[in-house]
Amino acid sequence: TSSGVFLLQMGWGDLGAFGEPSKETPNLDQMAAEGMLFLDFYTASPLCSPSRAALLTGRLPVRNGFYTTNGHARNAYTPQDIVGGIPDSELLLPELLKKAGYTNKIIGKWHLGHRPQFHPLRHGFDEWFGSPNCHFGPYNSTERPNIPVYRDWEMAGRYYEDFKIDLKTGEANLTQLYLQEALDFISKQQASQQPFFLYWAIDATHAPVYASKQFLGTSQRGLYGDAVREIDDSVGKILKHLQQLGISENTFVFFTSDNGAALISAPKQGGSNGPFLCGKQTTFEGGMREPAIAWWPGHIPAGGVSHQLGSVMDLFSTSLSLAGLQPPSDRQIDGIDLLPVILQGKLIDRPIFYYRGNELMAVRAGLYKAHYWTWSNSWEEHSKGIDFCPGQSVAGVTTHTQEEHTYLPLLFHLGRDPGEKYPLSFASEEYQQAVEHISGLVQQHKATLVPGQPQLNVCDQAVMNWAPPGCEKLGKCLKAPESDPKKCSWPH
Amino acid sequence: TSSGVFLLQMGWGDLGAFGEPSKETPNLDQMAAEGMLFLDFYTASPLCSPSRAALLTGRLPVRNGFYTTNGHARNAYTPQDIVGGIPDSELLLPELLKKAGYTNKIIGKWHLGHRPQFHPLRHGFDEWFGSPNCHFGPYNSTERPNIPVYRDWEMAGRYYEDFKIDLKTGEANLTQLYLQEALDFISKQQASQQPFFLYWAIDATHAPVYASKQFLGTSQRGLYGDAVREIDDSVGKILKHLQQLGISENTFVFFTSDNGAALISAPKQGGSNGPFLCGKQTTFEGGMREPAIAWWPGHIPAGGVSHQLGSVMDLFSTSLSLAGLQPPSDRQIDGIDLLPVILQGKLIDRPIFYYRGNELMAVRAGLYKAHYWTWSNSWEEHSKGIDFCPGQSVAGVTTHTQEEHTYLPLLFHLGRDPGEKYPLSFASEEYQQAVEHISGLVQQHKATLVPGQPQLNVCDQAVMNWAPPGCEKLGKCLKAPESDPKKCSWPH
Repeated sequence: TSSGVFLLQMGWGDLGAFGEPSKETPNLDQMAAEGMLFLDFYTASPLCSPSRAALLTGRLPVRNGFYTTNGHARNAYTPQDIVGGIPDSELLLPELLKKAGYTNKIIGKWHLGHRPQFHPLRHGFDEWFGSPNCHFGPYNSTERPNIPVYRDWEMAGRYYEDFKIDLKTGEANLTQLYLQEALDFISKQQASQQPFFLYWAIDATHAPVYASKQFLGTSQRGLYGDAVREIDDSVGKILKHLQQLGISENTFVFFTSDNGAALISAPKQGGSNGPFLCGKQTTFEGGMREPAIAWWPGHIPAGGVSHQLGSVMDLFSTSLSLAGLQPPSDRQIDGIDLLPVILQGKLIDRPIFYYRGNELMAVRAGLYKAHYWTWSNSWEEHSKGIDFCPGQSVAGVTTHTQEEHTYLPLLFHLGRDPGEKYPLSFASEEYQQAVEHISGLVQQHKATLVPGQPQLNVCDQAVMNWAPPGCEKLGKCLKAPESDPKKCSWPH
Repeated sequence: TSSGVFLLQMGWGDLGAFGEPSKETPNLDQMAAEGMLFLDFYTASPLCSPSRAALLTGRLPVRNGFYTTNGHARNAYTPQDIVGGIPDSELLLPELLKKAGYTNKIIGKWHLGHRPQFHPLRHGFDEWFGSPNCHFGPYNSTERPNIPVYRDWEMAGRYYEDFKIDLKTGEANLTQLYLQEALDFISKQQASQQPFFLYWAIDATHAPVYASKQFLGTSQRGLYGDAVREIDDSVGKILKHLQQLGISENTFVFFTSDNGAALISAPKQGGSNGPFLCGKQTTFEGGMREPAIAWWPGHIPAGGVSHQLGSVMDLFSTSLSLAGLQPPSDRQIDGIDLLPVILQGKLIDRPIFYYRGNELMAVRAGLYKAHYWTWSNSWEEHSKGIDFCPGQSVAGVTTHTQEEHTYLPLLFHLGRDPGEKYPLSFASEEYQQAVEHISGLVQQHKATLVPGQPQLNVCDQAVMNWAPPGCEKLGKCLKAPESDPKKCSWPH
């Protein structure tokens, strides 16, 4: 059975099936109607790089090294001056799937490090079309090079130069390129009758948000909605392609997101986290609860709904299971195999851990969520207009100082209070029972936790994408400045 | 064609089909899947009595008299000391439907006045089972009588005495009684082959929230969710009954709410307004945008979705149209006939007016909403813990003083910004065009507006439900105190 994962930055509330009021995602809604909707599904970090590393390793960022210790409880990712990346010691899903004869392709944003040793084709992927970093820019080529777009081992050009993004109009045809790549890859695999793993890691809904010309202005929701519509349309085309090739019953497809909608980019470039608190960068529900749909015609009963606490890391274990493989036994794997959930409607008891850096901020078990630390961002950042919770303010919860609650966690019942507005009374029996249970889980978790070497501590302008492989052929090599390694600055 | 309307207090975000994360409304979701979902549907007031008066008259509360002038922009309703009620001069939907041979029944909360001249059987209904007021209580029978439950012309008992509501456990079997009434009425009408209008105006999700024993503890959402589940189950049973009797293709059914979820009662007794701002009592989207589903098998294409700006007042005109009747031509009717929308997918250009008392607070046209006045509630009330926007605070928008914006309205684009968090720049061309258009609509509206005599100004303890008709037979008559008419106090 082949696997496909669609990963992008989108909020829980961005799909019609999840209550977005414009209801402009007919293909994703159809995917949900034909498959299974996960309503309690989480990413592994409120930020993209660590989440993507967690998806591909089945392990929390604190284990696989995708975190920083430069400050307490800071979110970190892989800008182009990052020195670190995915360690060789980590086993990635495509590396393991190779053993079962899979061909593996990543389309879109890799984000696990852009230096040569971190190249996705060194970590199990057979093909790549996309970029190592976010599509920020344009840069001036002297202080900072534009981000390269790779075709397999070598660069095929750079954003803003060879792959246009018009920041004024929001026009870029990248999603169409990524769609065509996906369709071609699937056709090729079907023709060769080889199982495949396709990781469609697109980023049109990540600022700077973009859409192709034919989608611009077609949404009620502005440019962000145009991007969502194009992604929705593309997903529909990919699923239809699988059906037309007659391989949909042999292909497990999962749609989800690497972090909650970036409310800081709203309203023009930010999505919706529905009824949840705050967004990207935070360990409130809006930052980490994600839309999620499993689709596998002939196997998953249509119209299914699951309240299984799920995680992007489960896609690691589930994909291995589909390939008849076991997860590695020499290390802690945080993902679980969701097939019993998806195929037999089982509910597996497991907690969800919410991290910021290497700090365990919160834990969900059942319908309870305990916050051990609360923080949105600093007053200093907030006073500059950086707001991860625009229009939302819950006293003692969306704090602008890091508040420790280790000895008396803030407890929420997410069924009665999905918006995390009403902490339970510390004196209540309900509080005491729930916290006792969660404390046990935390103890167990911490006792066995072996943090990986932090990869996101050091930045150096010399490691930027000055001269990616293949630049000579394109005349796109730039001169790197001298090495000047520094502690990366992670303000939140 | 018969008509049924389900009306209750529930928020936009309380249904699975509208993105409630627990997704516990399978019957309502099924109703939507078989019918048409309205995503931009509004009530006529952020409070129950005026909304219900508007539904039955097809007219804004400011026209039909269901408002107060005791203070500026105050919400008012019909507590049991209210002197006013629905004026005889108003023509109610059931009065008109009688001309087409309909039998009309109201089950549940009437709320258009409880004095004899306001009795629903004097205003077109043929049958009634339910109460004239909210089920607040219990009262002590000396300062305040318990609310009566009527069977047609006479009382059948009182809440908390003969119709139990256990405030400790939340147990009450009222929804089951109301369900059985509906099923029996439908059976009777089917047997007699008479068209009918059934107004199922239940209130289990109105504080004090209640559910029957078999639903208590069955929801992830606590007691409120239990009540929602029971209502969902009941709706499913009513629709199934119509199908089993073979009359579903002759019966138009509409589900909606009279105001947004009362966030002030959250988390135990309050629902969800999804991604919208604030709740009941306010003219933000959370106060007036409502879940809405039209169902009519064989006529409405399954799975329809409409962005028609709709109103509870449209149910007046639509029901008349279904009966082959014209709305009265001697008065202004605010409702429109939704049949072209429902049957032919048309979109009718019309504004939505948001009133508080007799003040036009805001207007929606297309995707734009202009606020002429903003107010949540007073600082004085807010300091007592009365909060209509818990956890939400948008500077200059969710104000605690009444802020006038008549000359420079606050403008929101509800597609890009459904949460009303980002007012458009006054200087933008988009602002100027939209406001010019909306100003024209306001001028037109105000030019033809003839306010009705305000019914909700005077309160008198002598008019309470001391001795409702039929009380003698039950030994339930209480002695009324002396008349002492006063201005009613409406704090928000």
